[in-house]
Amino acid sequence: MSFTYNRLDKNDVALLMVDHQAGLLSLVRDFSPDDFKNNVLALADIAKFFDIPTILTTSFETGPNGPIVPELKEMFPQAPYFARPGQINAWDNEEFVAAIKATGKKQLLIAGVVTEVCVAFPVLSALEEGYEVFVVTDASGTFNQTTRDAAWDRMSQAGAQLMTWFAVGGELHRDWRNDIEGFGGLLAGHLPAYANLMQSYSQQNQLG
Amino acid sequence: MSFTYNRLDKNDVALLMVDHQAGLLSLVRDFSPDDFKNNVLALADIAKFFDIPTILTTSFETGPNGPIVPELKEMFPQAPYFARPGQINAWDNEEFVAAIKATGKKQLLIAGVVTEVCVAFPVLSALEEGYEVFVVTDASGTFNQTTRDAAWDRMSQAGAQLMTWFAVGGELHRDWRNDIEGFGGLLAGHLPAYANLMQSYSQQNQLG
Amino acid sequence: MSFTYNRLDKNDVALLMVDHQAGLLSLVRDFSPDDFKNNVLALADIAKFFDIPTILTTSFETGPNGPIVPELKEMFPQAPYFARPGQINAWDNEEFVAAIKATGKKQLLIAGVVTEVCVAFPVLSALEEGYEVFVVTDASGTFNQTTRDAAWDRMSQAGAQLMTWFAVGGELHRDWRNDIEGFGGLLAGHLPAYANLMQSYSQQNQLG
Amino acid sequence: MSFTYNRLDKNDVALLMVDHQAGLLSLVRDFSPDDFKNNVLALADIAKFFDIPTILTTSFETGPNGPIVPELKEMFPQAPYFARPGQINAWDNEEFVAAIKATGKKQLLIAGVVTEVCVAFPVLSALEEGYEVFVVTDASGTFNQTTRDAAWDRMSQAGAQLMTWFAVGGELHRDWRNDIEGFGGLLAGHLPAYANLMQSYSQQNQLG
Amino acid sequence: MSFTYNRLDKNDVALLMVDHQAGLLSLVRDFSPDDFKNNVLALADIAKFFDIPTILTTSFETGPNGPIVPELKEMFPQAPYFARPGQINAWDNEEFVAAIKATGKKQLLIAGVVTEVCVAFPVLSALEEGYEVFVVTDASGTFNQTTRDAAWDRMSQAGAQLMTWFAVGGELHRDWRNDIEGFGGLLAGHLPAYANLMQSYSQQNQLG
Amino acid sequence: MSFTYNRLDKNDVALLMVDHQAGLLSLVRDFSPDDFKNNVLALADIAKFFDIPTILTTSFETGPNGPIVPELKEMFPQAPYFARPGQINAWDNEEFVAAIKATGKKQLLIAGVVTEVCVAFPVLSALEEGYEVFVVTDASGTFNQTTRDAAWDRMSQAGAQLMTWFAVGGELHRDWRNDIEGFGGLLAGHLPAYANLMQSYSQQNQLG
Amino acid sequence: MSFTYNRLDKNDVALLMVDHQAGLLSLVRDFSPDDFKNNVLALADIAKFFDIPTILTTSFETGPNGPIVPELKEMFPQAPYFARPGQINAWDNEEFVAAIKATGKKQLLIAGVVTEVCVAFPVLSALEEGYEVFVVTDASGTFNQTTRDAAWDRMSQAGAQLMTWFAVGGELHRDWRNDIEGFGGLLAGHLPAYANLMQSYSQQNQLG
Amino acid sequence: MSFTYNRLDKNDVALLMVDHQAGLLSLVRDFSPDDFKNNVLALADIAKFFDIPTILTTSFETGPNGPIVPELKEMFPQAPYFARPGQINAWDNEEFVAAIKATGKKQLLIAGVVTEVCVAFPVLSALEEGYEVFVVTDASGTFNQTTRDAAWDRMSQAGAQLMTWFAVGGELHRDWRNDIEGFGGLLAGHLPAYANLMQSYSQQNQLG
Repeated sequence: MSFTYNRLDKNDVALLMVDHQAGLLSLVRDFSPDDFKNNVLALADIAKFFDIPTILTTSFETGPNGPIVPELKEMFPQAPYFARPGQINAWDNEEFVAAIKATGKKQLLIAGVVTEVCVAFPVLSALEEGYEVFVVTDASGTFNQTTRDAAWDRMSQAGAQLMTWFAVGGELHRDWRNDIEGFGGLLAGHLPAYANLMQSYSQQNQLG
Repeated sequence: MSFTYNRLDKNDVALLMVDHQAGLLSLVRDFSPDDFKNNVLALADIAKFFDIPTILTTSFETGPNGPIVPELKEMFPQAPYFARPGQINAWDNEEFVAAIKATGKKQLLIAGVVTEVCVAFPVLSALEEGYEVFVVTDASGTFNQTTRDAAWDRMSQAGAQLMTWFAVGGELHRDWRNDIEGFGGLLAGHLPAYANLMQSYSQQNQLG
Repeated sequence: MSFTYNRLDKNDVALLMVDHQAGLLSLVRDFSPDDFKNNVLALADIAKFFDIPTILTTSFETGPNGPIVPELKEMFPQAPYFARPGQINAWDNEEFVAAIKATGKKQLLIAGVVTEVCVAFPVLSALEEGYEVFVVTDASGTFNQTTRDAAWDRMSQAGAQLMTWFAVGGELHRDWRNDIEGFGGLLAGHLPAYANLMQSYSQQNQLG
Repeated sequence: MSFTYNRLDKNDVALLMVDHQAGLLSLVRDFSPDDFKNNVLALADIAKFFDIPTILTTSFETGPNGPIVPELKEMFPQAPYFARPGQINAWDNEEFVAAIKATGKKQLLIAGVVTEVCVAFPVLSALEEGYEVFVVTDASGTFNQTTRDAAWDRMSQAGAQLMTWFAVGGELHRDWRNDIEGFGGLLAGHLPAYANLMQSYSQQNQLG
Repeated sequence: MSFTYNRLDKNDVALLMVDHQAGLLSLVRDFSPDDFKNNVLALADIAKFFDIPTILTTSFETGPNGPIVPELKEMFPQAPYFARPGQINAWDNEEFVAAIKATGKKQLLIAGVVTEVCVAFPVLSALEEGYEVFVVTDASGTFNQTTRDAAWDRMSQAGAQLMTWFAVGGELHRDWRNDIEGFGGLLAGHLPAYANLMQSYSQQNQLG
Repeated sequence: MSFTYNRLDKNDVALLMVDHQAGLLSLVRDFSPDDFKNNVLALADIAKFFDIPTILTTSFETGPNGPIVPELKEMFPQAPYFARPGQINAWDNEEFVAAIKATGKKQLLIAGVVTEVCVAFPVLSALEEGYEVFVVTDASGTFNQTTRDAAWDRMSQAGAQLMTWFAVGGELHRDWRNDIEGFGGLLAGHLPAYANLMQSYSQQNQLG
Repeated sequence: MSFTYNRLDKNDVALLMVDHQAGLLSLVRDFSPDDFKNNVLALADIAKFFDIPTILTTSFETGPNGPIVPELKEMFPQAPYFARPGQINAWDNEEFVAAIKATGKKQLLIAGVVTEVCVAFPVLSALEEGYEVFVVTDASGTFNQTTRDAAWDRMSQAGAQLMTWFAVGGELHRDWRNDIEGFGGLLAGHLPAYANLMQSYSQQNQLG
Repeated sequence: MSFTYNRLDKNDVALLMVDHQAGLLSLVRDFSPDDFKNNVLALADIAKFFDIPTILTTSFETGPNGPIVPELKEMFPQAPYFARPGQINAWDNEEFVAAIKATGKKQLLIAGVVTEVCVAFPVLSALEEGYEVFVVTDASGTFNQTTRDAAWDRMSQAGAQLMTWFAVGGELHRDWRNDIEGFGGLLAGHLPAYANLMQSYSQQNQLG
């Protein structure tokens, strides 16, 4: 069978951040809280860095689910933002889908909480409508590893591609020369092990 | 390839609970007993909440396999109930299949013990007959993680969708506004972490 | 060296439940939520069953830490209850300690959230004052396994005994004949695997 | 897409046991030695129970790889047995393939050590020749979990079905009534947890 | 501080097997069923091999806890056997303690189900009476790893020594020359990896 | 035996940060990089918050071990800082020990990389000199879990107390009323799960 | 569906080693450092043994990513070697692709660091161009297990085959008789457990 | 209580390597084979580097236990070497103990296979005779983690100190200046992650 590599294209992609809310985050247990916070903010930084149209949505944010993570709101003050009145699948919210279509992009990056509902449902809906869908798995969290495994399988079998924020960044950037300083800084800010490499390198250059 | 998202539809789905028996449950070791009991009862509550036709079946319930979990029997007193005389694959029991067909549904939720036999066999049979099949993976248990992984792979490759009870609930409910109180109560009853969110929220409202 | 086995004595023991609050519970990740809820309620049921003086305390319950788990409040409506105005170590609260001393008991069962602070601090204080201290480890939770391991080591080295709710129940009951029905029911309510044994046994007796 | 459930048929299946040799077994670390020994012998017992044509093969059995597990040799004294002179993929051994073809079966159960070589290679060869191939995953072992995961994925993607010995037994037996005593004994011999159920049941019947 | 190595002495040790019953075994989840069955029978074989006085006891064996594992009863037909009428701590049963004292031994090997109750309670009682106590940890099982860790800590801090069946065998045997064939056979029967070594060795000697 | 609870006292404690260097951090694998970075910075923030005398030291910082983590240097610009010329045990560096003694404190908090060397050696030296030593285990890292377990055991048996940064903060602060805002902010900055609680609480108050 | 087994053919395969650099290796945490080093060198030895055209490439080797692992450079002194000026996907480097095409091979073995970027991107590009692609999963490393799982799924769904170095060696060698000594030596050098088998065998032959 | 830090002293320590034999190594499953081989050889290199008297012993090396690991024999051609005729506890072999006493050292490093027998027994015997005993835990292996945990606890409670090869090296070397090149080379040879640091550093110096 022939295979087409639909690479992420920074000019043809939009990001959907679904239900990263303070209350719902307390349910996430397939990542440590430090790791998960870092992953979500890294994805947000990537979207800023590449100027990717980003759409935010929440579910019952004035109830137990709690407010959206404040850092996200601050990072995307102009982004379309939909506080859904009740739809569990964000794709059932007409304004949300209209905003996606308004971007004119055919690739969608999707992340959210919890994986098997808030992520998987719009992923499947978007696939049905013909979008190329990329799940940012490590910026999406849920109750436990078993639930995650089932959700990943369902999305993968439907045709979604499973990625992580670092792979998204690399596939969008394509060439370090497009902005060495900027991309390096982005990585250092979210990969302590890479920041360590840069610090050792930098000191030695000063000493050398 | 084009993809069709066959969403769970509360008007077109039936639930099959296969061999959740006291003896067989002692074999389940891919979940803690507390987690597994909670998952099975959560699935049952979902079926009640959405009024989904539910069919129960057991294998040799007067022998070592033991009686059906009493909570299930109490929750579904009117449900078709088939104590199979010997068939390992419940689908080989004609009355069981007849009851399924009598529901007129084309989507099947299937859960049971043990996963690779009591779940996988009817899953594969139902797929062959053209049903859309959704495995409720966390209400299905078996001997260990290795066995589960193999069983999931076999069912997934055959076309079954791997879900968990929470995803089933969300996909059936579709919109919180259909019954906020009811659905919230269902979640709180089976997700202690969500119940905590609701309690914090509720107290603050009283204090506020 | 000679060893004295200071067995738990239902006539000489009090239970301290420290900071089992809805908000703080969201921090607990060394147990699954289902397991932890079950463990805490099992311990409470044991205290009720053996009529053990129980003292409740909370930390900032009108703030983010949230209200006490409602089941605990309902189970111990008459219990001394101290909403501490700020002391992190409950033992620094004079009313709390006075209530403990008022029980006249020399053995203390202590459980709480989070283990290395809300449990460990009063455990060490109580040891210093000469109490025999028994930590109910599985009704005490914290951020992760590493934190728990460190906290257990500190308490154990200081002389506290590490127990779990089932061991507490068995050591207090001593002989099934003291109340077979009651104690069996308590176990069945919190050990699904034991409930399964009882159901298989019970059915067979009816059939036999 | 339509799906055909090619169920294991005891009249149309052969079993290939590949390189279960004393030396090679020391390399297996994705199962505990007790579990793995039990799984291999359980599979062998199933073959005996259902009278399934079984073919044994070994690789360099007079060298470091060591002799075939003695229990297998004793259980299948009449089985075709091929000590391969050098072929790594058993399917490259013409006598081995001839013996398979001589059985006239179209379904193959394959197990061996190590999974990614001694199992995966003949699995892929057999698939290419049109056989329906079922990997008995828990009677196949290798160096570690990572290696196993990769090998399972390769075989599954090629069309092999991943099973475990218990699922094989159940799918072949189909109905307990075909031989309750025999099949129950087989399970009890290899599932200590099931043997426990039978003993509790049996005693109670004697007492009842 | 000075240390005295109280080695296990086959002439001065007795073995207590506490509550290895079919029902209770279904609760054990800190070992795989295959591993645990092997460990218990290995310990029993060691007792037979060294002719160590062995005492069996059970708790409510005609109820849900179920009958003693039949292999144990067959292996020790003459052993003192106490079906306790209700005492949870076997040491509270006077006949049981009298039988222990009648052996005249000062070292005790103790194993049982579940670890934190049926093992830990008599371990602590025996320590208090001045016995040297050795817990056979891998022939003792319980609900989960957390419970085990707490129970081990309590027993270790009280002065019990934590051992495993293989260490017990080695410390009792002391010198292979006391019975090479016998001890080697015992190991081979319970250590599949060691049996593999012996088979490779044996074949090569025949070929050599 | 009597026990004295030597509580951490903010007026009688000093902090030693040993070898948190960019190169050495690449060796730490018993924590995820995100978790470890957070733990180290949380400990540093605690020292700042309570104005605890802090002493920094490094090993060969101009070689492969790399420079000290830049955040630490920025946070403690005035702290005594010893770039050791070769001593592996920092306590063998006379200036380092002199600086410790100059603080006049009798309690020491120690953290570093790697645990079994850079932490354990000065811990044991300090214990020998009569200090009360508290290991901040989660701000200390090493190659793997096995190495950590051995190092913890050695330090604990010698009399060191195993703590974590959150326990250190709580034991130093003692009473929230000493500075609710400050301490809450410190926790929120390093415990994403606690920050979530505060955000939910805060929003609701605004809405209420 | 029909399946074609495209076996690795030593005459039709090339190996791509992507970004095995000293700095990047510090990011790899889904393998222990000992295991990963061994896996990478084993793959290199296989390429040497079978005389497979090997192409090396690095990313910013004079920056923080660090120099290529020196053993690789020494083993392949004549191999095409491309220090990419900035392309993240090595396939975007025209010289690299030209060198691959110059080999005239249609099968590609690919390994590198990190898996989801440096491996996955060229894997997908090569698949698109019609190559048969085999990922050497255990000579490819990344940040953690979650990231690896996502990367494997993406590559597998696109049609890449997931292998490990031992499977690669076996599939290339096909028959031990092609060079028993050489292949055995290769295995012994990288599989300590196999070396042990050979040593036991060898000694016994000398003694025999 | 006062504590004395008995540091490892290169002039007062001997190393005992017990039963690192090819056959017995196949039983070790608490380390990966790569890791364990590396740990054992690292310990041997340390003994060579510091010129520590080393004593080797084996158990039945002409039988299934197999020959001593050849690298050890080559590294210590002049070392006292005792092929024990049957004693399981090496300390029961008079020549072995005589050789230890002949060294005149009062500190003993002990490593071996399997941990709970071949290591623990001589450890306890040596403690009884007043030696300071240091277990090199990561150069000692056994069947599984449970067995290891029990063995570590027994040795630790008796007064042995649990170390790892890297800690041993650091405590013996004390100061890098004693031999920077030599000690650095030793670490680089056994810590791939440290070798990576050195390579990055070295290249940059050449480029700088």
